Amino acid sequence: MLTIRTGFGYDVHQLQEGLPFWLGGIVVPHTHGALGHSDADVLIHVICDALLGAANLRDIGFHFPDTDAQYKGIDSKKLLAGVMKLLRERGYELGNVDSTICLERPKVNPHIPEMQRVLAEVMGVDADLISIKATTTEKLGFVGRQEGVAAYASVLIVKN
Amino acid sequence: MLTIRTGFGYDVHQLQEGLPFWLGGIVVPHTHGALGHSDADVLIHVICDALLGAANLRDIGFHFPDTDAQYKGIDSKKLLAGVMKLLRERGYELGNVDSTICLERPKVNPHIPEMQRVLAEVMGVDADLISIKATTTEKLGFVGRQEGVAAYASVLIVKN
Amino acid sequence: MLTIRTGFGYDVHQLQEGLPFWLGGIVVPHTHGALGHSDADVLIHVICDALLGAANLRDIGFHFPDTDAQYKGIDSKKLLAGVMKLLRERGYELGNVDSTICLERPKVNPHIPEMQRVLAEVMGVDADLISIKATTTEKLGFVGRQEGVAAYASVLIVKN
Repeated sequence: MLTIRTGFGYDVHQLQEGLPFWLGGIVVPHTHGALGHSDADVLIHVICDALLGAANLRDIGFHFPDTDAQYKGIDSKKLLAGVMKLLRERGYELGNVDSTICLERPKVNPHIPEMQRVLAEVMGVDADLISIKATTTEKLGFVGRQEGVAAYASVLIVKN
Repeated sequence: MLTIRTGFGYDVHQLQEGLPFWLGGIVVPHTHGALGHSDADVLIHVICDALLGAANLRDIGFHFPDTDAQYKGIDSKKLLAGVMKLLRERGYELGNVDSTICLERPKVNPHIPEMQRVLAEVMGVDADLISIKATTTEKLGFVGRQEGVAAYASVLIVKN
Repeated sequence: MLTIRTGFGYDVHQLQEGLPFWLGGIVVPHTHGALGHSDADVLIHVICDALLGAANLRDIGFHFPDTDAQYKGIDSKKLLAGVMKLLRERGYELGNVDSTICLERPKVNPHIPEMQRVLAEVMGVDADLISIKATTTEKLGFVGRQEGVAAYASVLIVKN
């Protein structure tokens, strides 16, 4: 019997001048970067949350608390690899993921193919299963004021 | 033939000092609570909306209008039970639900297992089918300013 | 073998006095309308993005850039028809779509059956596959201040 489950992730990080801007597993050239306990890669965080939620394994803050020194500045790709391992131990495999980055600047589109390649390798799946989209919020809200970056991810996971 | 359908819910409520804070079918201890015509349980409302949307049965405001006195202060668990009844009458059953609460304070994580237990009982499903996650918005936006609480829910429903 | 994929769209447009308010393929009577390069139909845009994301075909800004004069003021129904064509060329068909419009005013509910009818015709699918819901954000944030309109769409697409 085939089991299909849905998962959804939403996350926000503040932007701060002078920080490296980790996003989708790579550094995007920009004057500002995302602030967080780990490397603050909001795209990887929402994919982790969506995967964990789909498998009903709580969320990223539960597994990797921002009060734990061992996750200070950690490369979020390691967290994503850990999440995929948790799912596979329970017999789940990725169906697909569709994600959206909400960011006023810089333009993310040119970097998306490289993000897809990097995340596919970390997750051990075909790049065709990983969709990444980008939108501004038309200068509205905290994303529009360039105070923060937000992201959404929707996933399906499957078990045979 | 198996039919699988997706549903998605998003909702917001203002926070106001001195109100009981209904969330996920329980009262979360806090100085503020959510404001609304019913008990203002934003997590239950997004799950209802996602279920209704998946079955293309309009939304919670359509079935339980906030201009109708009979829903004044109503326990949202009754609305959720009613929504599940509507779906089952049409042959649908829950696949799974993954939800996210966006709230700056208090910490929701300690209350999640109890919320899952309560919602599973109301919905008549296994608690493994109900995932609840929580995130702050890093002090940004109306959630970050503690003016409101928001929630998202993604569901799959199935019909054999 | 049946392939099922998830897609998710989120988009925002500013509201400006005196513009026609295109939403869900129709004009909703209101003092304000949405601002954009095309007709700024935020509901159609999120459905397009969700469909493209599900098929991993980038996003609406990639296919129909707002720097391209040929899309100036374009009827978004043409973009949606184009997106459905892209999906069908790859063997995909719509499973279902569940969408949410976030708008403080006017009330959208009375217009939803007409939007469903119009979008079903444009997409070449049964209206039962297209759910449209509406919510306010309780006067909070840019939607609550009536500075903008936002929308979400969740879709499943299938390939046999």
